[in-house]
Amino acid sequence: MLRGLTGAGLGALDNQRQLIELAGRYGFQAVDTDALSLVKEYGVDGARALLADNGVVISSIGLPVDWRGSEESFLKDLEGLAAVAAAAKTLGCTRCCTYILPSTDEKAAPFMAAATRRLRLCAQVLGAFGISLGLEFVGPHHLRTRWANPFIWTLQETLDWIDAIGEPNVGLLFDAYHWYTNGLTVADIKALRPEQIVHVHINDAKDVPVEEVLDNDRVYPGEGVIDLTGFLQGLQAIGYTGTVSQEILSVEPPTGTPEELAARSQAAFNKVFTAAGL
Amino acid sequence: MLRGLTGAGLGALDNQRQLIELAGRYGFQAVDTDALSLVKEYGVDGARALLADNGVVISSIGLPVDWRGSEESFLKDLEGLAAVAAAAKTLGCTRCCTYILPSTDEKAAPFMAAATRRLRLCAQVLGAFGISLGLEFVGPHHLRTRWANPFIWTLQETLDWIDAIGEPNVGLLFDAYHWYTNGLTVADIKALRPEQIVHVHINDAKDVPVEEVLDNDRVYPGEGVIDLTGFLQGLQAIGYTGTVSQEILSVEPPTGTPEELAARSQAAFNKVFTAAGL
Amino acid sequence: MLRGLTGAGLGALDNQRQLIELAGRYGFQAVDTDALSLVKEYGVDGARALLADNGVVISSIGLPVDWRGSEESFLKDLEGLAAVAAAAKTLGCTRCCTYILPSTDEKAAPFMAAATRRLRLCAQVLGAFGISLGLEFVGPHHLRTRWANPFIWTLQETLDWIDAIGEPNVGLLFDAYHWYTNGLTVADIKALRPEQIVHVHINDAKDVPVEEVLDNDRVYPGEGVIDLTGFLQGLQAIGYTGTVSQEILSVEPPTGTPEELAARSQAAFNKVFTAAGL
Amino acid sequence: MLRGLTGAGLGALDNQRQLIELAGRYGFQAVDTDALSLVKEYGVDGARALLADNGVVISSIGLPVDWRGSEESFLKDLEGLAAVAAAAKTLGCTRCCTYILPSTDEKAAPFMAAATRRLRLCAQVLGAFGISLGLEFVGPHHLRTRWANPFIWTLQETLDWIDAIGEPNVGLLFDAYHWYTNGLTVADIKALRPEQIVHVHINDAKDVPVEEVLDNDRVYPGEGVIDLTGFLQGLQAIGYTGTVSQEILSVEPPTGTPEELAARSQAAFNKVFTAAGL
Repeated sequence: MLRGLTGAGLGALDNQRQLIELAGRYGFQAVDTDALSLVKEYGVDGARALLADNGVVISSIGLPVDWRGSEESFLKDLEGLAAVAAAAKTLGCTRCCTYILPSTDEKAAPFMAAATRRLRLCAQVLGAFGISLGLEFVGPHHLRTRWANPFIWTLQETLDWIDAIGEPNVGLLFDAYHWYTNGLTVADIKALRPEQIVHVHINDAKDVPVEEVLDNDRVYPGEGVIDLTGFLQGLQAIGYTGTVSQEILSVEPPTGTPEELAARSQAAFNKVFTAAGL
Repeated sequence: MLRGLTGAGLGALDNQRQLIELAGRYGFQAVDTDALSLVKEYGVDGARALLADNGVVISSIGLPVDWRGSEESFLKDLEGLAAVAAAAKTLGCTRCCTYILPSTDEKAAPFMAAATRRLRLCAQVLGAFGISLGLEFVGPHHLRTRWANPFIWTLQETLDWIDAIGEPNVGLLFDAYHWYTNGLTVADIKALRPEQIVHVHINDAKDVPVEEVLDNDRVYPGEGVIDLTGFLQGLQAIGYTGTVSQEILSVEPPTGTPEELAARSQAAFNKVFTAAGL
Repeated sequence: MLRGLTGAGLGALDNQRQLIELAGRYGFQAVDTDALSLVKEYGVDGARALLADNGVVISSIGLPVDWRGSEESFLKDLEGLAAVAAAAKTLGCTRCCTYILPSTDEKAAPFMAAATRRLRLCAQVLGAFGISLGLEFVGPHHLRTRWANPFIWTLQETLDWIDAIGEPNVGLLFDAYHWYTNGLTVADIKALRPEQIVHVHINDAKDVPVEEVLDNDRVYPGEGVIDLTGFLQGLQAIGYTGTVSQEILSVEPPTGTPEELAARSQAAFNKVFTAAGL
Repeated sequence: MLRGLTGAGLGALDNQRQLIELAGRYGFQAVDTDALSLVKEYGVDGARALLADNGVVISSIGLPVDWRGSEESFLKDLEGLAAVAAAAKTLGCTRCCTYILPSTDEKAAPFMAAATRRLRLCAQVLGAFGISLGLEFVGPHHLRTRWANPFIWTLQETLDWIDAIGEPNVGLLFDAYHWYTNGLTVADIKALRPEQIVHVHINDAKDVPVEEVLDNDRVYPGEGVIDLTGFLQGLQAIGYTGTVSQEILSVEPPTGTPEELAARSQAAFNKVFTAAGL
């Protein structure tokens, strides 16, 4: 498994270059970042060089398509998706992820129908460029009632939705925070086939009752109560060979410079990977 | 447009043969009935002869698959679907319909995902035999809260769901009762392309406030308040050339023998078709 | 049925505006033309005004995607497809067509697999914008051996391929020249459902043995030997309500100014439509 | 990786029970065999007991559907597919395989379109029961011209066809004989993801020029010239954890009783697995 960084947890980054350099300098082999903007800024060769020089790959891009809103907004974003996928492909990135909010102000059944259609089309376009789409179930309880109607939030509901979407290149973005807040176990990880997991996010949770854990109040790996040893060992056991990227959403920006936070992240990864025997 | 009968509205029919004979005798060209049982009873040649001798075709079969319950039940029924489709094909029937209950005790979003997957598979199997799948939106207000969670009940929601199912052979079972209880207009019919309508059901509604109209309390065409002239003229205007079959769901069995009720149905059809200039 | 013009048969047109103006002036209600370039030149409002002022709609755009060549070329073109579809949608155009060459230098089976996948993806992207994809089978015998390996060229092979592509919005571009050179009859048209026909092209053929008819040696409707009365009456009989656009491919540019050729086209359409009782 | 047996290579087996017992007795953990017939003969519980008592699972069933012939024949077989899949599911079997003949008397492009559609539908039905479909490319040169028109026979052509079929549960039946006669290397195996391989067959080839190797003239693993060490190590390296089943097609039945041939197979597997360090 590769170790990766997202921008979430590194404070006030100047730009993508800084994310990539910090990743390379602090023991990470991958970053979740936007490929198209990198190519636009540096050109294909320049972007490849920037990554290669820092010993870093792009583990995943985000899905830059509004699939949760109006059809008009969705179609507007769809116009740019193939170019985004092409850019990711030129940089050797094969994963694109999006998150599923557990509730919605839309009527749940019609919204599920629309979302199924939209994500299927996104998967089809991404698939032409060899890119897999990872869907992230989101576990914190407060979000289940944040909007009017329950949508989905469990692992099984997400796997079932992936079946309904019906494309070969759709799987999970498996985030430790959501594994934890869903009350899942290591056995639940071991029941998965590695190819069902497109990407992994890691973080930790404060020591509060699980029903009170807030989605945007995460801590660095090893600083909380999630059984990250079990989490990582489960992934290892099933043969997951992708990236584990850190994603620390917080209410306040974390204190420290990006350099300090990258170092803190490196220490966090060393702690939890070592504890897991990896 | 062909005129058709279902068993609903003919009282205590002895068997399928009687339905077919009554249809032929009382001015109908089609019946909604089960093809496989007809073939099992009479053989292919015998079933064909029974239909031909009475000048009647099978306009639609029902979908004999439990797509609303457990996965186990769905798979059990799936085992028989191809044989059902094959039987329909041998008798020249190209339509298979199912109804959508407006609410469900299941969580709406996961249920929509499962139903999308199951109906897509049904459509795929049916499509191999040249059969289209018609989905009937159900309008009566009381059913929207009959079960715990709203599912879908409008024309537009059903058209959107058909898009999400994504198969070429899926369309609408368009029922006058549900057009009426959804507050739809003739313009809504005229906005449809004829190929979006797989099958049509006709009936009438009692003169009560539309929010109080009960699904199983229908009356014969022309005996109620639905603008069936507009309904039929709308279908004619868009070039719908399929069957319009009568379906009278009632709490109590209708009074009269099947013969009498077939005659009553013939008179009803004559009344409303003539009023519509058809 | 609407009467339409393509650029093929109007000689040396200055630009799209001229095509649209000539269409409006010479009795045509539609043009096959590129929507994106029109929007880029005139803006959405300007393009809409140009069309409306001339009483003309865009009946079909062409598919600007190289689906016959390398994967690299296909993906490059795919990047622009959604924007093309969006432009067509803003101008109210719902059809996009491409032609099928009857033979190929590629190995036929692998090429069929690749083409199926590519056209399915094109149809999926187009479908998001409400656009149907029409596939044109090409009948002239010389093209069946122009390249090394037979691909497909008959109506039935094309219908079967549409089934294999498996998307709801794929149908035929039905061209009189290919109906004729395939030896098809009016009965073959009458066996079609109108929704299977996305678009129609009309033209005529020289009085030579059908096996010698050349694809790029067409004449104006009514100037040749194709039974265009049967062709048009067949389309009318099945309820086809789309456009019939003229497409005259010729070795040498036709003689005459675009004005003269538009007038000649109008006379040709009047002749054959009148002969068909339309 | 599990070691498996097919009936091909065990001579004149009395029945399925004997295959299962011999597998268990001679060091194999799996058999490729028909699940439905086993369930019909022994009942679900009896079939499960028979397998469990012998320490054997069913690694794969064959696809009992004629997808290469007439549409009529395909549809007839389709009627039984769901029941076959259900039986496999009850016995814990998750794989179903079919072979691809490299040439065909059908026109290659239309045949590819039909085959794509038919195998997609088979995959959809199988997928409902959690079963993957493995497609076996067939390498021996003589079969490329055995029928009139080339179809497909390479690894890449088969992977491309899997993409065109477009279902999530379709992959390869990877047979050493076809890896060898296609001139493939260990690098070609290592370029695969393990989930692309649904099932594996093993055998060996006589020491004749590879263009002269006959499909039905195979020898037991280790008795020929195929680099089975490389083959097995490649599969191990990519993390393939499925079954490797022996399939020895021969012109004449092999000499020896099933017992003797099972012992010979065990020795063959021990030889090649040991040589590969497995």
